[in-house]
Amino acid sequence: MRTGIATVCLSGTLKEKMQACAIAGFDGIEIFEQDLVTTSLSPEHVRSMAADLGLTLDLYQPFRDFDSVPEELLAANLRRAEAKFRLMSRLGMDTILVCSNVATASIDDDELRAAQLSRLAELAGGHGVKVAYEALAWGKYVNDYEHAHRLVELVDHPNLGTCLDSFHILSRDWDTAPIEGFNPEKVFFVQVADAPKLSMDVLSWSRHYRVFPGEGQFQLAKFMGHVVRAGYTGPVSLEVFNDVFRQSDVERTAVDAMRSLIWLEEQSARWLEANPTPAEAAAGPGRRRHPMELATLPRVAEPAGFNFAEVRAADTGALETLLGQLGFGFNGRHRTKNVQLWTMGHARVIINEEAPAAAETAIAAVGFDVDSPVIAAARAQQLKAPAVPRKSQADEEVFQGFAAPDSTEIFLCQGSPDGTAAWVKEFGTAAGTAGTGAAGPQAVIDHVNLAQPWQHFDEAVLFYTSALALEPQPYAEVASPTGLVRSQVMTTRDRGVRLVLNLAPLLQQEGGPESAGTGSSGDAFAGTQRRTYQEHIAFAVDDLVATARAARGRGLEFLRIPANYYEDLDARFDLDPAFLATLSELNLLYDRDADGEFLHFYTATVGSVFFEMVERRGSYDGYGAPNAPVRHAVQYDHLHQLKLTA
Amino acid sequence: MRTGIATVCLSGTLKEKMQACAIAGFDGIEIFEQDLVTTSLSPEHVRSMAADLGLTLDLYQPFRDFDSVPEELLAANLRRAEAKFRLMSRLGMDTILVCSNVATASIDDDELRAAQLSRLAELAGGHGVKVAYEALAWGKYVNDYEHAHRLVELVDHPNLGTCLDSFHILSRDWDTAPIEGFNPEKVFFVQVADAPKLSMDVLSWSRHYRVFPGEGQFQLAKFMGHVVRAGYTGPVSLEVFNDVFRQSDVERTAVDAMRSLIWLEEQSARWLEANPTPAEAAAGPGRRRHPMELATLPRVAEPAGFNFAEVRAADTGALETLLGQLGFGFNGRHRTKNVQLWTMGHARVIINEEAPAAAETAIAAVGFDVDSPVIAAARAQQLKAPAVPRKSQADEEVFQGFAAPDSTEIFLCQGSPDGTAAWVKEFGTAAGTAGTGAAGPQAVIDHVNLAQPWQHFDEAVLFYTSALALEPQPYAEVASPTGLVRSQVMTTRDRGVRLVLNLAPLLQQEGGPESAGTGSSGDAFAGTQRRTYQEHIAFAVDDLVATARAARGRGLEFLRIPANYYEDLDARFDLDPAFLATLSELNLLYDRDADGEFLHFYTATVGSVFFEMVERRGSYDGYGAPNAPVRHAVQYDHLHQLKLTA
Repeated sequence: MRTGIATVCLSGTLKEKMQACAIAGFDGIEIFEQDLVTTSLSPEHVRSMAADLGLTLDLYQPFRDFDSVPEELLAANLRRAEAKFRLMSRLGMDTILVCSNVATASIDDDELRAAQLSRLAELAGGHGVKVAYEALAWGKYVNDYEHAHRLVELVDHPNLGTCLDSFHILSRDWDTAPIEGFNPEKVFFVQVADAPKLSMDVLSWSRHYRVFPGEGQFQLAKFMGHVVRAGYTGPVSLEVFNDVFRQSDVERTAVDAMRSLIWLEEQSARWLEANPTPAEAAAGPGRRRHPMELATLPRVAEPAGFNFAEVRAADTGALETLLGQLGFGFNGRHRTKNVQLWTMGHARVIINEEAPAAAETAIAAVGFDVDSPVIAAARAQQLKAPAVPRKSQADEEVFQGFAAPDSTEIFLCQGSPDGTAAWVKEFGTAAGTAGTGAAGPQAVIDHVNLAQPWQHFDEAVLFYTSALALEPQPYAEVASPTGLVRSQVMTTRDRGVRLVLNLAPLLQQEGGPESAGTGSSGDAFAGTQRRTYQEHIAFAVDDLVATARAARGRGLEFLRIPANYYEDLDARFDLDPAFLATLSELNLLYDRDADGEFLHFYTATVGSVFFEMVERRGSYDGYGAPNAPVRHAVQYDHLHQLKLTA
Repeated sequence: MRTGIATVCLSGTLKEKMQACAIAGFDGIEIFEQDLVTTSLSPEHVRSMAADLGLTLDLYQPFRDFDSVPEELLAANLRRAEAKFRLMSRLGMDTILVCSNVATASIDDDELRAAQLSRLAELAGGHGVKVAYEALAWGKYVNDYEHAHRLVELVDHPNLGTCLDSFHILSRDWDTAPIEGFNPEKVFFVQVADAPKLSMDVLSWSRHYRVFPGEGQFQLAKFMGHVVRAGYTGPVSLEVFNDVFRQSDVERTAVDAMRSLIWLEEQSARWLEANPTPAEAAAGPGRRRHPMELATLPRVAEPAGFNFAEVRAADTGALETLLGQLGFGFNGRHRTKNVQLWTMGHARVIINEEAPAAAETAIAAVGFDVDSPVIAAARAQQLKAPAVPRKSQADEEVFQGFAAPDSTEIFLCQGSPDGTAAWVKEFGTAAGTAGTGAAGPQAVIDHVNLAQPWQHFDEAVLFYTSALALEPQPYAEVASPTGLVRSQVMTTRDRGVRLVLNLAPLLQQEGGPESAGTGSSGDAFAGTQRRTYQEHIAFAVDDLVATARAARGRGLEFLRIPANYYEDLDARFDLDPAFLATLSELNLLYDRDADGEFLHFYTATVGSVFFEMVERRGSYDGYGAPNAPVRHAVQYDHLHQLKLTA
């Protein structure tokens, strides 16, 4: 698949954009007119720079409001077009995007439109230019790609073809199957963009909220499958207008964009395989494959579960105390690294003592159980995940790792059917192993919440979707005293892995007056400010009341839940008084829905990390979202008291 | 007018919210249920704290999904309601908001609904509680306020009345005139919220984008006029769900909120005056006034023009050079202050040398010509604008000033019909006055662009609307290499004053990798980072080409416009080649629309300030918006070169 991207997707100058596209590995780019108009580089300079960078210049765009106009305006439009054709010749470009008219269209007549497009094609032909005509979703008269293509067929000129843009097609819910019947010689260009399903005017939606494939909710694999079946073999190019990408680091966004095309190629191939035409089905497994089906990303199954979670701590004392009180047992130190292992059943927590000097205690890494760490790592690397090498010595398990967009390290571990981990033997036995093994209390990691910087949220969704085969669930918003927290759950189908991506309110991310300390104001997300109270590890147990009582017996400091909460709980759920009293006594939170019940409690915070213990009853599949505002309010209060006494 | 606000409008804990409301001067508050559930304060404590703060507790809200349900669910809902009634008794509250059912409603039958609301009212009566029933805009069966009110009349119970919420009414474009016919005894509560006109699903619109009155586009004065005519005299309370307010400084947001109600009261009184009923019109000027019409904010006319602009400069040399090159003349130093006066015709620029040590050169103040500075200042003060006193000595003009939300100082000056300013005589004559007086080149301040911090943008719109009688125009978005810049023009009707509020991309405000230096990451907007390239002063002249030639003769460094821009200009406008050559030679930008033409150029930047010279031909009313991306790109390039050589 020839990959492309429009310069309008990225921040910076034209030069910076071109360099970032080359580094990310794109084959070509679309030049957005404004990027050329605002650069001090001459067209000839842009042309030679592209050649040096190994980028083809695939599409000049957009040329607006050409068709459906009176004759005198047409003359001006042709004059304007010819100036652009001359410019394209200096750039060495041969294809221009012409959008259906939205502003100056005044005549709704397909014959006239065809005649006008014919004159444009004829003029273009004289300059060696091909015109790719596209129906904008909000075009005044032409807003349906089939309509645009009928006009192209009506004109039947070698210099006029169709541009298919997934946004303009899928935002209007047009059926994409008819694409298969298009003559591939008449499809000059294909642009792809994803988007969240929003109920708003399509122009604003298009200009601000497009995202890269895999970051939204459009059925892009199906769209591409139809395009491939039509026989199209030209560039597949991203045109994504997004307010966040426009201001983010250009090289990073370009890599995110490239990842989305690699993933889309694979998904499209899978769609083609799963949805054969009758002829393909009849031909059986030996049928001839479309070129896109030959793309070979290493295939992986979704991870089976969490292998471990790692917390980085400058001062480990508070963490050790907390884990011990929760019922975790100390399983010794690693024989070559400055890390400790704490376990409770199959829940494994590593305390990493090698924290940078200024770093606060925070979640540093998460390990996942996969079938084959090597294959999974190869896949992640082909998806341009930055590798994180870990030093290891002979005889030690080599972890394949890479850095997630929020800079958390993700490790791919050898899963075992019984939930154990081979690397545990690298930790020396030690005193205080009371909580380990089959004899002690059982627990597993239920979910891990990771804080995301706002400018990399969409990137993170695609990262976990493509590299780790997690599936995004509908997102939730939770009220906190410092604003709304957006929460995106990513899971495997059997819920063996539940990862929660939390987006803190902006002012908290900036380190505003409502938050403690000073935030890091860079792209690196190195500071812990915006992580505070957005990150935690939750462990599931079979009997939360017993776990809580035992923890209280060991002196655990619970997050204290206000009495008003229990009164409201009673008003909502009509609970048994004894049960309600137990919840209140132990600071337990409660939720219930049609599927089951959920009990949970939170610990106090160490650095920017806290822990949660949960019990799922029945088929409860949530996270106690109605209780999250209570947690946020109590943590906020606690933070304020710390500040007052500081 | 009794003023109120729902606690959900504000950030922080319940206690912080209540204190901020008291400080801002509200009469009462609505308690949002979640704020009570999440607080550790007992209901009795909340009650006594409100009494100490002088706040009435006007409304407990919301009670959801009560009506239109089967009998067994109704029983549970009545049980839940009774728990809340008991809680309200402990709080000393007598009114609860019940919203029309959106989730569990399954029966569409007005008689059944009336019967169910009747049982609720009867139960409430036993606890001394009044139920205010509100039609949510997205209620399943009841989503029209007249429908809700018909149900209230059908039940006809002293403990059941209507709650009117302007958002739910105006978002659906319901006619508000029928409110006048409502029995005021049956209107238990009135909530007001404004909103920008957005084309999106009404639930998301309501939950995220409400703003305070005067910050959106709803016809709230008309709504309130009808409410007043109905005879309603209860609280007028803000219920504004807004993602930004929820994370902003609580005390500041409370003041912004209070300002919006003071302004709404005045606007409602004006609407009543301008739209008399036939009976009122017949009674003539001596008619009996509604209580709201007696509210007396000092009335002011819109300002006639700019009196001066003031630039704060640590090192004044570069500024002096720049102004001199533009054609400004030095008019001497102030006799008691460390400021210089520079003039070009009636355009006056003050250079303030008393800048804080670390401050960069930036726009510090803007003076406006008003009829009566004292009356205008009194109005601003009643609108809770923070006053800025200026030291002055005997014989010197006393400027009435206050601080705008972005911390720019706004001064109210005595305007004069001939455009002169009396205070100029306080500046000693000096050498180099070549540019002054009738003999030199003429200019006026055309517009001033001020950068706004993102969390105070709506506040700024209301501030200039209410305190300075400017009118917001439709806003524009401009592409820059670091993201989209939102631009809100505020003008007087005759365009004597044009103020442009610019909202820089977030990452630039934070001081991300794409911007120079480090941003201030607080609420004070003290840093200059987010102001860079978003603030400037534009002067209008009669002959821009001559002005530019003269400036070039004096060595002015123009912002250099790329050649590609002029090629595109020619393609778009088919300009006379000689004129195009002149534009290109002098680095002039050009725009044309149906009203006229616009020529302009920009200077290089000093600190965070630059200047623009414009010429308006015909009735051109814009700001050369199509050229803004060129300016941004060139300034970005320039900044990058500075960084590379630094």
